[in-house]
Amino acid sequence: VPRIAYFGPEGTFSEQAARALADRVAGHTELIAIPTVPQAVAAVRRGAADAACVPVENSVEGAVSATMDALAVDEPLVATAEAVLPIRFSVLTRPGLTLADVTTVASHPHALAQVEGWLDAHLPHATRVAATSTAAAAVGVTKGEHDAAVTAPVAASHYPLEELAADIADVPDAVTRFLLLSPPGRLPAPTGADRTSVILIADAERTGVLAQLLTELALRDINLSRIESRPQKGRLGRYRFYLDFDGHVAEQRVGDALAALHRRCQEVRFLGSYPKAEGTASVAHPGNTDADYAAAAAWLSGVRQESQGTPGIG
Amino acid sequence: VPRIAYFGPEGTFSEQAARALADRVAGHTELIAIPTVPQAVAAVRRGAADAACVPVENSVEGAVSATMDALAVDEPLVATAEAVLPIRFSVLTRPGLTLADVTTVASHPHALAQVEGWLDAHLPHATRVAATSTAAAAVGVTKGEHDAAVTAPVAASHYPLEELAADIADVPDAVTRFLLLSPPGRLPAPTGADRTSVILIADAERTGVLAQLLTELALRDINLSRIESRPQKGRLGRYRFYLDFDGHVAEQRVGDALAALHRRCQEVRFLGSYPKAEGTASVAHPGNTDADYAAAAAWLSGVRQESQGTPGIG
Amino acid sequence: VPRIAYFGPEGTFSEQAARALADRVAGHTELIAIPTVPQAVAAVRRGAADAACVPVENSVEGAVSATMDALAVDEPLVATAEAVLPIRFSVLTRPGLTLADVTTVASHPHALAQVEGWLDAHLPHATRVAATSTAAAAVGVTKGEHDAAVTAPVAASHYPLEELAADIADVPDAVTRFLLLSPPGRLPAPTGADRTSVILIADAERTGVLAQLLTELALRDINLSRIESRPQKGRLGRYRFYLDFDGHVAEQRVGDALAALHRRCQEVRFLGSYPKAEGTASVAHPGNTDADYAAAAAWLSGVRQESQGTPGIG
Amino acid sequence: VPRIAYFGPEGTFSEQAARALADRVAGHTELIAIPTVPQAVAAVRRGAADAACVPVENSVEGAVSATMDALAVDEPLVATAEAVLPIRFSVLTRPGLTLADVTTVASHPHALAQVEGWLDAHLPHATRVAATSTAAAAVGVTKGEHDAAVTAPVAASHYPLEELAADIADVPDAVTRFLLLSPPGRLPAPTGADRTSVILIADAERTGVLAQLLTELALRDINLSRIESRPQKGRLGRYRFYLDFDGHVAEQRVGDALAALHRRCQEVRFLGSYPKAEGTASVAHPGNTDADYAAAAAWLSGVRQESQGTPGIG
Repeated sequence: VPRIAYFGPEGTFSEQAARALADRVAGHTELIAIPTVPQAVAAVRRGAADAACVPVENSVEGAVSATMDALAVDEPLVATAEAVLPIRFSVLTRPGLTLADVTTVASHPHALAQVEGWLDAHLPHATRVAATSTAAAAVGVTKGEHDAAVTAPVAASHYPLEELAADIADVPDAVTRFLLLSPPGRLPAPTGADRTSVILIADAERTGVLAQLLTELALRDINLSRIESRPQKGRLGRYRFYLDFDGHVAEQRVGDALAALHRRCQEVRFLGSYPKAEGTASVAHPGNTDADYAAAAAWLSGVRQESQGTPGIG
Repeated sequence: VPRIAYFGPEGTFSEQAARALADRVAGHTELIAIPTVPQAVAAVRRGAADAACVPVENSVEGAVSATMDALAVDEPLVATAEAVLPIRFSVLTRPGLTLADVTTVASHPHALAQVEGWLDAHLPHATRVAATSTAAAAVGVTKGEHDAAVTAPVAASHYPLEELAADIADVPDAVTRFLLLSPPGRLPAPTGADRTSVILIADAERTGVLAQLLTELALRDINLSRIESRPQKGRLGRYRFYLDFDGHVAEQRVGDALAALHRRCQEVRFLGSYPKAEGTASVAHPGNTDADYAAAAAWLSGVRQESQGTPGIG
Repeated sequence: VPRIAYFGPEGTFSEQAARALADRVAGHTELIAIPTVPQAVAAVRRGAADAACVPVENSVEGAVSATMDALAVDEPLVATAEAVLPIRFSVLTRPGLTLADVTTVASHPHALAQVEGWLDAHLPHATRVAATSTAAAAVGVTKGEHDAAVTAPVAASHYPLEELAADIADVPDAVTRFLLLSPPGRLPAPTGADRTSVILIADAERTGVLAQLLTELALRDINLSRIESRPQKGRLGRYRFYLDFDGHVAEQRVGDALAALHRRCQEVRFLGSYPKAEGTASVAHPGNTDADYAAAAAWLSGVRQESQGTPGIG
Repeated sequence: VPRIAYFGPEGTFSEQAARALADRVAGHTELIAIPTVPQAVAAVRRGAADAACVPVENSVEGAVSATMDALAVDEPLVATAEAVLPIRFSVLTRPGLTLADVTTVASHPHALAQVEGWLDAHLPHATRVAATSTAAAAVGVTKGEHDAAVTAPVAASHYPLEELAADIADVPDAVTRFLLLSPPGRLPAPTGADRTSVILIADAERTGVLAQLLTELALRDINLSRIESRPQKGRLGRYRFYLDFDGHVAEQRVGDALAALHRRCQEVRFLGSYPKAEGTASVAHPGNTDADYAAAAAWLSGVRQESQGTPGIG
């Protein structure tokens, strides 16, 4: 049975994402809660898990630095699937309590931030308490440390608590994107609606180098959907760039673009090609289809094939 | 007396940066500790402070999201100065204690992360305790809540504690960059070694749009030193881009590039032109000097000047 | 009465073009036949004519080098109008002769080349004779030197000859583009369907310089309709580039592009903005309209306006 | 014995170039004078000659349209060598005549144009007579039709004439570049100082298409040495582009650029890779060497190699 590590404890959004991805890619699986993102990633690297489900970006809070830094160094891992989860919260309390009884409410600070408006409206006098995760806050409620916890919906199925409120969020469409990370191996087959992710280290000293790297994508009609930068440890002004763009490495234009990035960069780390959660197809326009690449290669080969040896009359 | 808000309490790195910047730009100033970055920024917007000193990026931890998000909305502020501080820590304890006596050590989690190697070597058995800031950890030591705190060096001058160790950091060259933010007004004069910062919102639907924006800089020989992205609240895949590049808005090529960005973007927010901390001059090469711009404008004006009215024989 | 020089003698396609352009731009004019393109251009420079009508390119024969070289040096002239003439020929002979009587047929070699198929079909046994112009061939027929001449249609109205055939051309859609050249002065007002022409000398030593110059146009959504190169006299590998592109110098994006070319090039010579013969409008897309330029300039001015003098707290 | 056709008759500059190229590439050869460029090219296509030596551009007169048009259609030919000849003229006359005796001087009009200043100074009163080639003018002198001929130096060895003057040219450094054209076959081996030539037909309807094609070269650090345009017969505004750039098709970056042009263009015709006459090496900078291409291909292959079949856990 494949084991999928997730950023836990039980009852987090990562668990929800892991369940969704496990259903999609592998049928029956064993889920393993691991306390931090780096530890979940390390579990895959050392073989203690077959894959890890970790958050990569949130539409409100942005990139998850811990995930990005964990991917940048040590043994390479590749994403084989992604899931986008709506981030809507439940408020859990011990059975029998009502809103009027709640004097303290706990959660991870990010979660508290995302329901601040709701709390101001419905629990204006309750003290906010920071917990290390949404699930840990739920545990705290079971122990009587706080009266209520702001949690992922899935937490309700793990702890003997009742839902005072559900489906709440100040930003109604907030979502988090999760990746399923595995050791390099067989990549998911192209679906026509794929995403490819890489990490680049470019030459910081050359004016226009990033413009040129992105032009390599644009010239091949490849849509860049995301760019993030993270510092290379220890030097301000030196960055790693995380790029997400449409297409699958098995496509000629994507492979060709990756090879161009490889030539131009100090380092390129391939982070996988996998179906986009949103499922919108990315069509290669004329000049960039696999057929165009094949025709160009055949033509070039024809032009070159006689170029062995010495010229005749020429 | 100008009042400079900083991300406090007293004894943080932000206070150190505020002191350094205050000395440089304003002579005698009043420093005001404010608990969060958004609150420090808001204090300037409502006139409770004349400027705010906030961290913008750290060479290990990366961008400071709170600062970037605070700059993106509400009344515009501009940076008028920057400072880069080495991030090296002190370990403070109550007078009389030695390393052997320390069983708990507290600090902000980022700080604990940056001295983890040192703690493993020197305090392997001490329990790590998370505090809301390095300075708050020091306060906790004075109260007897913990035995030691990992702090900014300046904390030693605020609290009745002793230095068990100083100048420690796992990554020896870690630095944090701070900006001094003010309401728009007179900008610092160009020094020849300046940086300009902007926030852009581009059209996410067009392939190659970011490549084109960066090409606008590259064509003018303007060096991009940093690009960060932050989500536009509420939608995955929609970002704000934070760009730092060499040059001062008073330079023709920089103004021209900004105008081009303005035409191409849904929104451009100017974040200031200010002397670079590193002081390396950014020279405009031939074709991009102010004199080249003046000559081109004069030529164009000559070409156009007769274009009023109807043609003669033509 | 304005005097328009044309590449003559009487009865050439240039005369036809001069008549068409004269009607369009100036009402009553005096037309002056001048034997060569450089002499026609020189007549304008020294004031002997107010304008010159000269061919600039033919859809079969390509660019007219004499015109391009004449424009590149000495006092600048600008085009104020263009005309595109279909190049279809007449075969003229003395009254009373029939095809069967024709044993010699004369014309300018280019004209003979453009009706070779017709001659092979209808006058297979007639000897071809080269003349210095189509009109000179007609003169030769009047003198009895040859039996027939291949001429511009207009020749029939100048010489006492009869049309044996009309409207003939091997390439049925062959056309020649003519420019009306004047001394710099009031340019034609923008019509929304204009063309701008320039001559550039770029730095031949820099890889990618022409790509960058054309990118300056492309980034502003300016359509390049033609590029020709001519040697700078005396050195192989050094060229002047002749560019025709859509838009009028009075448009902001065109002026801005011209200023950028001026900064980047060793030399830019403005050859005029004038209505396109084909009349297809060239619309500036969002980001490149005059309104976008005005908004960007106003924004930049606002950003800069306070940048005088010394900073306050900053 | 290989047969090399040249644009003749005997005694032209093309013969001089053909002799120089024959010596360089093939040892003993048979030279065949052919009256026009298209006929010389056709002779190679139908096997009547093994190669053709034709002029391609002159530093004063520019591109040789006849050569370019002959290369664009029908069976492809490739250049295997080039030669650059100084264009300096001799003035030949019948034995016994002096300058004072010369009342008529004949030559090809281009040649007369290139010595006009010398004729004005030394033969101000002699009538200029147009001939179909410089060599034909020499023949005319032998027949007594004219008194003197302006010719290529080599003409003096073909005709029983005396040199009245030698080494004359108004533009002292005028040169003509010649190509040796053969049927496709074994190409010359790369020398490190090669040139590659192609003809492109691009999509005229897309703004920026030529900028993008040239950017494909620039991004690969390939220096464009020449671009010419020629009309596609029958439509104004539709052109073929003739590109000369540094490098040999056997180089990875050149082949990669050619494949990119092939994908983007309606038509690409390869005109050969051959040693540059000027012999200056074209070095691929880091990121564009064959080794960089090989490393990128190996990396990409590694990334892709497991992408067959279905994913495991992913």
